[in-house]
Amino acid sequence: MFNTSFLHIIDILGTFSFAVSGAFFAMEKKLDPFGVLIISFATAIGGGTLRDVLIGNLPVGWLKNETAIITIFIAAICSMIFDGWLKKFNRTLFLFDALGLGLFTIVGIEIAMEQQFSMGVCIALGTITASFGGVLRDVLLNNVPLVFRKEIYALASITGGLFYFLLRRINMDENIAKIICILLIFIIRLVAVKYKLALPVFYTKQKTSI
Amino acid sequence: MFNTSFLHIIDILGTFSFAVSGAFFAMEKKLDPFGVLIISFATAIGGGTLRDVLIGNLPVGWLKNETAIITIFIAAICSMIFDGWLKKFNRTLFLFDALGLGLFTIVGIEIAMEQQFSMGVCIALGTITASFGGVLRDVLLNNVPLVFRKEIYALASITGGLFYFLLRRINMDENIAKIICILLIFIIRLVAVKYKLALPVFYTKQKTSI
Amino acid sequence: MFNTSFLHIIDILGTFSFAVSGAFFAMEKKLDPFGVLIISFATAIGGGTLRDVLIGNLPVGWLKNETAIITIFIAAICSMIFDGWLKKFNRTLFLFDALGLGLFTIVGIEIAMEQQFSMGVCIALGTITASFGGVLRDVLLNNVPLVFRKEIYALASITGGLFYFLLRRINMDENIAKIICILLIFIIRLVAVKYKLALPVFYTKQKTSI
Repeated sequence: MFNTSFLHIIDILGTFSFAVSGAFFAMEKKLDPFGVLIISFATAIGGGTLRDVLIGNLPVGWLKNETAIITIFIAAICSMIFDGWLKKFNRTLFLFDALGLGLFTIVGIEIAMEQQFSMGVCIALGTITASFGGVLRDVLLNNVPLVFRKEIYALASITGGLFYFLLRRINMDENIAKIICILLIFIIRLVAVKYKLALPVFYTKQKTSI
Repeated sequence: MFNTSFLHIIDILGTFSFAVSGAFFAMEKKLDPFGVLIISFATAIGGGTLRDVLIGNLPVGWLKNETAIITIFIAAICSMIFDGWLKKFNRTLFLFDALGLGLFTIVGIEIAMEQQFSMGVCIALGTITASFGGVLRDVLLNNVPLVFRKEIYALASITGGLFYFLLRRINMDENIAKIICILLIFIIRLVAVKYKLALPVFYTKQKTSI
Repeated sequence: MFNTSFLHIIDILGTFSFAVSGAFFAMEKKLDPFGVLIISFATAIGGGTLRDVLIGNLPVGWLKNETAIITIFIAAICSMIFDGWLKKFNRTLFLFDALGLGLFTIVGIEIAMEQQFSMGVCIALGTITASFGGVLRDVLLNNVPLVFRKEIYALASITGGLFYFLLRRINMDENIAKIICILLIFIIRLVAVKYKLALPVFYTKQKTSI
């Protein structure tokens, strides 16, 4: 009971944070307030929407979830009003974003598990839930998605997901396992950014002819 | 009865107009005729397709609607053949486009209302129906979506949608309310373009670090 | 029986080939290994995913198909490890890609026919299955989709699809008709690339004002 409302609070914080992140990227591209709102929205609900569509969980979640919509509205409007002021809280926003990554991964895995998918598919759906919003934001703003070339991001989500299944296999309590994995993803992301950890990059010099 | 066929005619005109708009943008990017056809198609059916997928109204509408497909084919082929000639009708096409915006908004709201969604969600789905085709066109052509930075576009759709619920709440006849709101969206769009009305833009100078 | 496993083998080869093609494009953009994996995945499953979503065949195929996921993983990892070596097999990869185009077209048509769609819709869904993966790859990598401006690609798919319906109408055996059409698409694609056949391009000099 406590845990449900605890997750619910982080869910709202995660949605808020992703929405703020979307709003800031949109403002950098000088979109008008409506554009900022849309990008904000797409960033916050993109991952859950793709997951729901892929598994046929329709209508998608946010159509039935007024709280998410209101949270995103408030986040986008706050971002536009408190532009300079919010920048000072970059670290706070980053913490929310990393927390959101952890939470949305677990939410995605939970929803996938309810439908009896295999472990690999559950982890894939968790990662999609946590990272597709950012991909959508970047595609709409005409950037190569950041998730494809930044510090370890989706990999933190995958690692946390694998760990969650490990903890469940050793019969750890479901809620404790969730909290541990959210924290694990959170910490991996923090460490990756602090020490600028990234995967090595591969090159091909010639053009492919396919 | 009269009203159904009246809406049906504007629906075809709207589809035709969005298809022509897609074809012209594609020709500017020097796509081959097949590419022009695809972009034309995506522009005309994108909004309705996303709406249908989000609410789980599958298979999506155009798979069951030969008229829409034939209309788009004719529109795309005409655009390519009568290239220079159609340009003279820019004003006419623009009127169709604005009319399409109004109609597709109302169509989207109607379909959402059938599924008992809340007012906010209905208006959101109306706006998605009316504007996502253009977003898809711009993403496929590798532009930042115009809807995010042009004269009031989606906002006209939202305003019309809100007005529709107002008129229904005061028990106005459904069909009359529809026509009024289509005209309202049409006029807002026309006035916005004529007087180059746009929402003010917000700026952020520093890079966000999230 | 023989034919089912025969198609299954080409399906895996096609998936492998599309995955390799995605990996190579991603490596050219210098994405990290995770990004390469994702683009590889999107290229290989994009077409089937869009088809399944549009017709409401949910959860989408690859969520229920471990073979496809494993094939893509192997293809992406091989592409990264045997980078320079695989380049020597460009011709082989191109043949796989063309074969994949043929197979995925027929797979898409078959699945659409099961749901009693009209001929035009079946061919459209076959073409979407065969070509949307490449579109998704290009959108994610921020290019104008190649399919819109390269040698005859989707047109080969459409031609093969039309031919399939012709052969079925003259009561040719289903499996033989499939093989003939896969080969037809394969050959059209090969001839188009060998002789650099392309559709003529249309131009518009002025900006559209819509």
